[in-house]
Amino acid sequence: MTMIDKLVVCGVGLIGGSFALALREAGLVRRVVGIGRTRAALDRAQALGVIDEVAGGWADALDGADFVLLAAPVGQMDAIMQAMAPYLGDDTVVTDAGSTKRDVIEAIYRNFGDRLANVVPAHPIAGAEKTGAEAAFASLYRERKVVLTPLPENEPSAVLRVREVWEACGAAVQEVPPHDHDRIFAAVSHLPHLLAFGLVHDLAERANAEQLFGFAASGFRDFTRIAGSSPEMWRDICIANRQPLLAELDQYLAELAYLRALLLSADGEQLERLFAEARDARLVWGERFRSDPGSVQ
Amino acid sequence: MTMIDKLVVCGVGLIGGSFALALREAGLVRRVVGIGRTRAALDRAQALGVIDEVAGGWADALDGADFVLLAAPVGQMDAIMQAMAPYLGDDTVVTDAGSTKRDVIEAIYRNFGDRLANVVPAHPIAGAEKTGAEAAFASLYRERKVVLTPLPENEPSAVLRVREVWEACGAAVQEVPPHDHDRIFAAVSHLPHLLAFGLVHDLAERANAEQLFGFAASGFRDFTRIAGSSPEMWRDICIANRQPLLAELDQYLAELAYLRALLLSADGEQLERLFAEARDARLVWGERFRSDPGSVQ
Repeated sequence: MTMIDKLVVCGVGLIGGSFALALREAGLVRRVVGIGRTRAALDRAQALGVIDEVAGGWADALDGADFVLLAAPVGQMDAIMQAMAPYLGDDTVVTDAGSTKRDVIEAIYRNFGDRLANVVPAHPIAGAEKTGAEAAFASLYRERKVVLTPLPENEPSAVLRVREVWEACGAAVQEVPPHDHDRIFAAVSHLPHLLAFGLVHDLAERANAEQLFGFAASGFRDFTRIAGSSPEMWRDICIANRQPLLAELDQYLAELAYLRALLLSADGEQLERLFAEARDARLVWGERFRSDPGSVQ
Repeated sequence: MTMIDKLVVCGVGLIGGSFALALREAGLVRRVVGIGRTRAALDRAQALGVIDEVAGGWADALDGADFVLLAAPVGQMDAIMQAMAPYLGDDTVVTDAGSTKRDVIEAIYRNFGDRLANVVPAHPIAGAEKTGAEAAFASLYRERKVVLTPLPENEPSAVLRVREVWEACGAAVQEVPPHDHDRIFAAVSHLPHLLAFGLVHDLAERANAEQLFGFAASGFRDFTRIAGSSPEMWRDICIANRQPLLAELDQYLAELAYLRALLLSADGEQLERLFAEARDARLVWGERFRSDPGSVQ
């Protein structure tokens, strides 16, 4: 693949930082320029060798840039695009790492309406509850999925470029319509995060929280791991994707209402059948995920 | 500690099998006799060296037994106690590994009403989604908690014996009143299991289940790990502990109703505050749990 001469990463945290480290390790980038909200974070990223330099501003950052990754919380995407739009060159390929796509795409149309050819929305399915450039590592995307939700206006060459860059990071790339993307991730990612945050919050507010947490064990540890995630990032995801998320939450509330009825009537037979169906589905999925976490459906 | 000459384990799965292996490794047991529902499982446990012999029946098993662990699903405890009661010697110490205690204690009073001195209810806080003697290992209880819920009628010497045996397995033992036990574990263990089973069941029944599972990643993996647990064991726990579990479920449903309202009103500020409180509590707990999973509160 052609070398990236100047890579611009907006948001040098776990996602943006790992992207830069992966391309650097692959020897596919000459210069990594960082830009973001807080100077301290950018300086830290530079000190860690995640980026080579800190941009003075968007004019400076985009001057001669051939590839831009927007890796900020989705709630900031609109403002970021507004700030960069005046300086965006015609040949610069732009993509994002937003966990939601409908809202990011709306921001793209609002801010880049006149040159949509090279702005390709995407979502790398990777992360950790750790945040910041300190948490970044080159292999984060290895065997992970990256979903592209291309626009009708995108140049095929730009979509191909974004695909090959992510593949160079070790990811398995696939294309999905934006609305399908947002519904799928509301179900398998956004809802579980909401449920985990909710359970820990519920217990943390109890008078006997200390006692409860004192007896929580490894099942609780794994169930609530994602409640250690970034509150700001998840606020933005929940707000941006709230319609599909509400639909998933309501379907889950119906499931819980059914479970509640089985408990009330002490219907052990139906409970066991439901648990067995869940167990079987979970074991089949677990095997497949273990054998190939990046497997493309 | 005094040697156990004849140990009887009823239910030679992960819990009972690991108990036998731990005491064997500690050199504290001469003979391990297994008894249970299915001959095949007992023969497998013997072939694996988890037990030395398979008892012909309770008369045979309890003849000269000095320590008995009941490690069957709690739904079977009453029938097991009924079957063993006629042959239980006065000096034999009996304990159980039931995940719920109120129901087990009711069965103890029903079946051992005349000799409660040596029957000490307990609950080892350890396990895995794997089941069966094949999954058993000697270090399962190392740095894990074991909760004793002694009866007023228990001989202090019997309570001490059960304590030292579990400590010999590497566990941290503490005493808790039975009703507190059942409420605590409804909150930190039984509810999370119900929620994980429910989510996987909900998704597995969708028309696009394949697509959904295809995009599920590591957050989903950890959140749903406990949905791989034994349906029979969890049926019994949910039925036995359904009153405290219903109370916990209802409190959690109130939490979800609040989260739903925040999503509907797109109240990012309150969402972020709630997520941050949960994140902080989870990180504090995670640190403490990592440093000492068996730490006694």
